[in-house]
Amino acid sequence: MTANTSATSGFRSGVTALVEAPWFNAFITFVIILNAITLGCATYQGWSAQTLAFFRWFDAAVTFIFVVEIGLKLIAYRGAFFKNGWNVFDFAIVAIALAPVSQSFSVLRALRVLRVLRLISVVPMLRKVVEALFRAIPGMGAIAAVLALMIYVAAVMATTMYGASVPELFGSLERSAFTLFQVMTMDGWRNEAVQPVMDAGHPFAWVFFLLFILVGSFAVLNLFIGLIVEAMNDDIEKDVERLEAGHVAAHEEREDMLAVLSAMRAEIAELKAAIDAKD
Amino acid sequence: MTANTSATSGFRSGVTALVEAPWFNAFITFVIILNAITLGCATYQGWSAQTLAFFRWFDAAVTFIFVVEIGLKLIAYRGAFFKNGWNVFDFAIVAIALAPVSQSFSVLRALRVLRVLRLISVVPMLRKVVEALFRAIPGMGAIAAVLALMIYVAAVMATTMYGASVPELFGSLERSAFTLFQVMTMDGWRNEAVQPVMDAGHPFAWVFFLLFILVGSFAVLNLFIGLIVEAMNDDIEKDVERLEAGHVAAHEEREDMLAVLSAMRAEIAELKAAIDAKD
Amino acid sequence: MTANTSATSGFRSGVTALVEAPWFNAFITFVIILNAITLGCATYQGWSAQTLAFFRWFDAAVTFIFVVEIGLKLIAYRGAFFKNGWNVFDFAIVAIALAPVSQSFSVLRALRVLRVLRLISVVPMLRKVVEALFRAIPGMGAIAAVLALMIYVAAVMATTMYGASVPELFGSLERSAFTLFQVMTMDGWRNEAVQPVMDAGHPFAWVFFLLFILVGSFAVLNLFIGLIVEAMNDDIEKDVERLEAGHVAAHEEREDMLAVLSAMRAEIAELKAAIDAKD
Amino acid sequence: MTANTSATSGFRSGVTALVEAPWFNAFITFVIILNAITLGCATYQGWSAQTLAFFRWFDAAVTFIFVVEIGLKLIAYRGAFFKNGWNVFDFAIVAIALAPVSQSFSVLRALRVLRVLRLISVVPMLRKVVEALFRAIPGMGAIAAVLALMIYVAAVMATTMYGASVPELFGSLERSAFTLFQVMTMDGWRNEAVQPVMDAGHPFAWVFFLLFILVGSFAVLNLFIGLIVEAMNDDIEKDVERLEAGHVAAHEEREDMLAVLSAMRAEIAELKAAIDAKD
Repeated sequence: MTANTSATSGFRSGVTALVEAPWFNAFITFVIILNAITLGCATYQGWSAQTLAFFRWFDAAVTFIFVVEIGLKLIAYRGAFFKNGWNVFDFAIVAIALAPVSQSFSVLRALRVLRVLRLISVVPMLRKVVEALFRAIPGMGAIAAVLALMIYVAAVMATTMYGASVPELFGSLERSAFTLFQVMTMDGWRNEAVQPVMDAGHPFAWVFFLLFILVGSFAVLNLFIGLIVEAMNDDIEKDVERLEAGHVAAHEEREDMLAVLSAMRAEIAELKAAIDAKD
Repeated sequence: MTANTSATSGFRSGVTALVEAPWFNAFITFVIILNAITLGCATYQGWSAQTLAFFRWFDAAVTFIFVVEIGLKLIAYRGAFFKNGWNVFDFAIVAIALAPVSQSFSVLRALRVLRVLRLISVVPMLRKVVEALFRAIPGMGAIAAVLALMIYVAAVMATTMYGASVPELFGSLERSAFTLFQVMTMDGWRNEAVQPVMDAGHPFAWVFFLLFILVGSFAVLNLFIGLIVEAMNDDIEKDVERLEAGHVAAHEEREDMLAVLSAMRAEIAELKAAIDAKD
Repeated sequence: MTANTSATSGFRSGVTALVEAPWFNAFITFVIILNAITLGCATYQGWSAQTLAFFRWFDAAVTFIFVVEIGLKLIAYRGAFFKNGWNVFDFAIVAIALAPVSQSFSVLRALRVLRVLRLISVVPMLRKVVEALFRAIPGMGAIAAVLALMIYVAAVMATTMYGASVPELFGSLERSAFTLFQVMTMDGWRNEAVQPVMDAGHPFAWVFFLLFILVGSFAVLNLFIGLIVEAMNDDIEKDVERLEAGHVAAHEEREDMLAVLSAMRAEIAELKAAIDAKD
Repeated sequence: MTANTSATSGFRSGVTALVEAPWFNAFITFVIILNAITLGCATYQGWSAQTLAFFRWFDAAVTFIFVVEIGLKLIAYRGAFFKNGWNVFDFAIVAIALAPVSQSFSVLRALRVLRVLRLISVVPMLRKVVEALFRAIPGMGAIAAVLALMIYVAAVMATTMYGASVPELFGSLERSAFTLFQVMTMDGWRNEAVQPVMDAGHPFAWVFFLLFILVGSFAVLNLFIGLIVEAMNDDIEKDVERLEAGHVAAHEEREDMLAVLSAMRAEIAELKAAIDAKD
């Protein structure tokens, strides 16, 4: 029984060693890059049936490699596997690839291409960048909520006011929200959003949109500033801590000096006592 | 008489306890979210007369709840109620909802949707974000005034120069200002603003717009930079104060040391006196 | 002769006192604001001949007031008048207003509106903002020169390559520069600039424009970053100087301590001598 | 033999002195500026055959001057010449100019205009700016790679999903990538990219583009923030080092004080011994 357990555990530690070997990661990276190239090539027309069959075969082979890879990692890490967000990401990518897809259902087929994003999860440098992006998100939470609320309220208002006259832009809540998002990106906001409304019998619509643009841009701008300030502060905080460490060291040195001074005072008192004793 | 006063004051402190209870705020928040959903749903076509009646009834119920809420807060805080900007905001929202609105007057009906923005005033996190936005405004005051002055002057000039030839863009002062605002957002500035003017017999109009874009962008950019710098400085100021607190502490430690040294000198002088006395 | 000089100098110091009196500046500010309003009103159609005559009369009156103001300042400050950039600005504004303008020459008439910008020179807060903008310019010099050089080179290239096929966009050097400026502002760059060129027989034109956009945006971005960093550094420099002042103060305190210690050493040596003398 | 070497080396050091003389650089700068002007003039139509011949002759003369300049520098610096990136740039510019060009091959002719960019390599201030731009690039590497990967994956997906229905925008991988780049610059993204796809039978295409815009803008924004933070940190790092130098100086002063205190303790001990010896 013990032998059996140890054999199992020996197998598991062997698998762990395998999936953590540098060449294993390098091999997966290589497979992803190759697949990225074949997926790109496959979008072009005019390949022979043979080549297309090869692309399909290679895709299946890559899926198989990914399934084996994830299976090995599951054996190696068991429950801990899903504690790492990147593993969850890899797992989801493979799950999408395994979903049965009819040739005509192009969206799911397109989603398969997301496997190329696994390049991020296997290349540490890219991984670090994306992790930094994710860390920036919580800091944006509250202001993003205010922006979303603002777009929602403006969309309800725009649908109520302009829905009947300009249905193609403000005919429904989601259409209004989309148009207002367009206005916020300042892409063709005048001729493609404001002017049609003004021409459709709302000559003062520009007041609504002007307010929306001013308030919206100001909120977006502050979202940006918040991100910049937070990023800066992380670094400055470290500098301040470094300087404060200097202060602490200086404090300790002064404490030492005070201890020396106390000792000297005791010695002088002793001296005084010795002289007095002479009397 | 005293009993009466105390009864009244007991009633008032009871109301204060009620409006400050966590569940009270949670209930209002819940009502606002529900109302946000029904207001959103109501924008869609094709509801049965019954459902529409429910939406109208629910709106009225929410208005009633808001009126009661504000009434209770007025009892609890009296005059102090209006010292808080958020209370003024809530009061204005309810006042708009109570204004008599004919079914055809869609603007006021649309303004009722603003009540969803009360979510900001009842959720502390959103409140903090919006308060931060408002605090940033005074810092922008002077440069925003320069920008407004610049647009005004440019609008007068553009109306004078191009009003007759391109009336749909520069026909009146407010139209020119709107077009110049569009140019400043760099949305379709060439084909929708500059080219029509150039084609209408002003081949050198591009000089005017180029200067306007360059000066305007530079001013807007500096408005942004000012906001970033101000936001950063608030944080850096705190860091500097923290470091200076360290300097003050160090200064006090050195003062202590000097005091010890003075005491030691006095003791040495005493010693000297004792020895001299021996002569 | 002496009496004469002193009378003149008395007159001059009286004029100086006048132009520096707070009410004088307040009066000029009031005149400018009134004129801004009348200039704005005058752009509208449909005024009676009488009102239009009043507008013209008021304009002339304002010009007269400005001429008197500048005359008084010239008497007060003489040559020093032109050492202040704002005075030069005011002088130029008045000079433009005095230029003889036929009713049909709308550009010079439009330039008269620039006098409203004098509001900046008479309101200290606005003046400070604009002075800050001007101070930011030298820091942009070198990178702006690189950008200008880049647009010039790209304009020559675009005129050579696309001038013949798309004359309305790239037909001459200045037209190409204008179109490239439009591309750099990312306004309609694809459909209004790149696509027409690609459709006119240059299928690889997107390479040229892509490079131009990437390099140009990167340069503009760095121009922005430079401005932000410079603005921040000015403030941080002050903080660092404040902290270093603390260091200097601490250094002086330590010097004092060392002086005390030296004195104590001397006293101990004296003590030693006294004891030794007893032997 | 020695005489010969020394003669050669004398020749070489003479050439070095020549190419490093201030007037040599000033002359090259002057030639480049003149050539920039003639190249600009040559883009205009309507010059006489004589003038055009002069332009062609001047171009050839400038090329000759550049060849001589680079030849002299090669003699002066030999292999070290190519270690400087600016020399490589100058060499490439001249190599392009020497490539045989038929009058009809306009691209290579246009590339010759790049020689005006040599102004950057000969004017130290512009050189510093461009060197600063290049230094900023490595810091962008990883996030630019993530962005490129994201555009590639989105381009494969868009080609798969929308290639058949909207071939003019998403018909091939490079066309999709170009359209997605356009979407990312937020130029006409709705009417020129999203709407055509939605109208071509993909009513939910807006989800794809919305996600692309949000994720893409967020990544680009973080690329910007990274550049700002890095630029700031370089300066702040210097400030912190300056402050830490102050800490080191303070530490040394405290060390000195401690040494003095040690000496004093020794003297007091000596004193004690002297007094004790008296017993």
